[in-house]
Amino acid sequence: MTNMKDIAKIAGVSSATVSRVINNNGYVSHITRQKVESAVEKLDYVPNSQAISLKKGATKTIGIIAPNITETITVLVKNFTLAAQKKGYTVILYLTENDPKKELNALELMRSKQLDGIFLIIRSNDWSTIESYTKYGPIVTWQRVKSPCISSVFIDQYDGYLLGLEHLYANGCRTIINLYSDIRRLNTKSRIKAYEYFCKKYDLTPHSPELFNNINSIQDGEHIAHWLANQEIKPDAFMTSSDAVAAGLVSQAKRLGYSLPEDFSVIGFDNIEISHLLDITTIDYSIHKQAENAFKMINNDLSLQKLTPEELDFTLIVRKTTK
Amino acid sequence: MTNMKDIAKIAGVSSATVSRVINNNGYVSHITRQKVESAVEKLDYVPNSQAISLKKGATKTIGIIAPNITETITVLVKNFTLAAQKKGYTVILYLTENDPKKELNALELMRSKQLDGIFLIIRSNDWSTIESYTKYGPIVTWQRVKSPCISSVFIDQYDGYLLGLEHLYANGCRTIINLYSDIRRLNTKSRIKAYEYFCKKYDLTPHSPELFNNINSIQDGEHIAHWLANQEIKPDAFMTSSDAVAAGLVSQAKRLGYSLPEDFSVIGFDNIEISHLLDITTIDYSIHKQAENAFKMINNDLSLQKLTPEELDFTLIVRKTTK
Repeated sequence: MTNMKDIAKIAGVSSATVSRVINNNGYVSHITRQKVESAVEKLDYVPNSQAISLKKGATKTIGIIAPNITETITVLVKNFTLAAQKKGYTVILYLTENDPKKELNALELMRSKQLDGIFLIIRSNDWSTIESYTKYGPIVTWQRVKSPCISSVFIDQYDGYLLGLEHLYANGCRTIINLYSDIRRLNTKSRIKAYEYFCKKYDLTPHSPELFNNINSIQDGEHIAHWLANQEIKPDAFMTSSDAVAAGLVSQAKRLGYSLPEDFSVIGFDNIEISHLLDITTIDYSIHKQAENAFKMINNDLSLQKLTPEELDFTLIVRKTTK
Repeated sequence: MTNMKDIAKIAGVSSATVSRVINNNGYVSHITRQKVESAVEKLDYVPNSQAISLKKGATKTIGIIAPNITETITVLVKNFTLAAQKKGYTVILYLTENDPKKELNALELMRSKQLDGIFLIIRSNDWSTIESYTKYGPIVTWQRVKSPCISSVFIDQYDGYLLGLEHLYANGCRTIINLYSDIRRLNTKSRIKAYEYFCKKYDLTPHSPELFNNINSIQDGEHIAHWLANQEIKPDAFMTSSDAVAAGLVSQAKRLGYSLPEDFSVIGFDNIEISHLLDITTIDYSIHKQAENAFKMINNDLSLQKLTPEELDFTLIVRKTTK
């Protein structure tokens, strides 16, 4: 592999001079610079990016780590990237497919100074393993974590979920089915709690969470529409874990001849583009602002120019799938 | 910075032995290995990933370069990634924001052996600049390019576009508005040609392409719905450049009280999820297979185990926005 010594030899100058030219650091006469540059050209020399980064101290590159690209993750990536690019950062997305090894490969890039910071949307390794990388740069996550060194933009969904349930109750819905994402996850646990509190408050009988678990995608929502068509006694409403599930349910129900909200109501979650396109009532969860806050937290660790994360709140967006 | 010599000193072994342990290459006794590993631990040594990659010859990492994340690019990234992951590759996405410098940074990573190949969805630099990087690894693009060293999964949209126009004609549509993406781009030029041929064939008067140019997003489609509401003489149909544009137009038209296809027809392009959700007639452009083909082409350059790219065709998917 070509190194600075080879260039120095061909250019007839010292290695230190070559270094000054390549790193653009210190005085070099015009003629000497030309000699070095033509030697670099001749040898097709590639500077070691790691070595350069170590000198500069920062690569101005932030990594995003996600298991895959869902509708919601797309919104997070897009808005994080826009915020970071405004401040001169390049953003790189690593898809782990939930493979802890691939996540480690990405984390290692911060250790070897190729990344300045990481937005870890959904992790694959233990938090303790991930924590050990915070000595190399800031890590901010979208998930709930109690850690002295990892920041989180997590918002407890309890209040947001309750907002939806109360809206349904006010519109006369008494039998409400909750389509849960994953009952082992903290977000879902908060939703279950909100639902139990709601049932107690209005003296309703809650259904078991296990009955409607692992419902995550547009296709899962479509399956629920078919399930519904086969039920003799139909529920008044569905609360869903995401706009994707709500979109699948609403569009398939319409194909099956149902009218919403006359036949039943549906509430999405996240307020992403598809809920707007399909006029689905949803809970605005400020996903794009969560992404911006994640960037602000990383920025504040890396830069002297501090940015204030925005306080976020849930908003009910009433559209045409509820009365 | 710690190097192998420092580790060798602390472990009391030769640098060659340290190298054997770190690169897991050649025999080292159990006790010696332990000594080296504890020295590595003690010094918090980070192996130079570039140097390791150079030795192994491949990082098993492929880069995807895109300007931003649109609905269509999401489908490309998702399916390319799935195909690549099946063959043991990690995929990294670089967002350039159409900045040639950022694209160059990503290309440089192939030069410095941190990437084995690149799927360049939409480029920012001149093709000649990009071509100069193909000596370091394969580059496949989604765009049309005549290059001896860059492969393309581009499909000329002429036939697909004509498929939509003929379907509209067969259903009685005579005044058809074409919502173009960018009349300077080759894809759009093919569409304009197909429209001109179509008009000549049926003795219709074509509208000027400039009238409906730069219509790309859901929001642009929504604006067209409002424009339509203000027209005294309404067209029979709209051909669009993407499902995103069609989705914005269809959903906003419905909000304004129009019924489709009774009041007018709309055809999307790409057959991505939102066209399914909104029951929009569209042209299946095999985007997910284009992405798979892109991976296969890169794979065939990198691996002895060849994969055959699939021949792709356009299909008209008739849904509920045409008669």
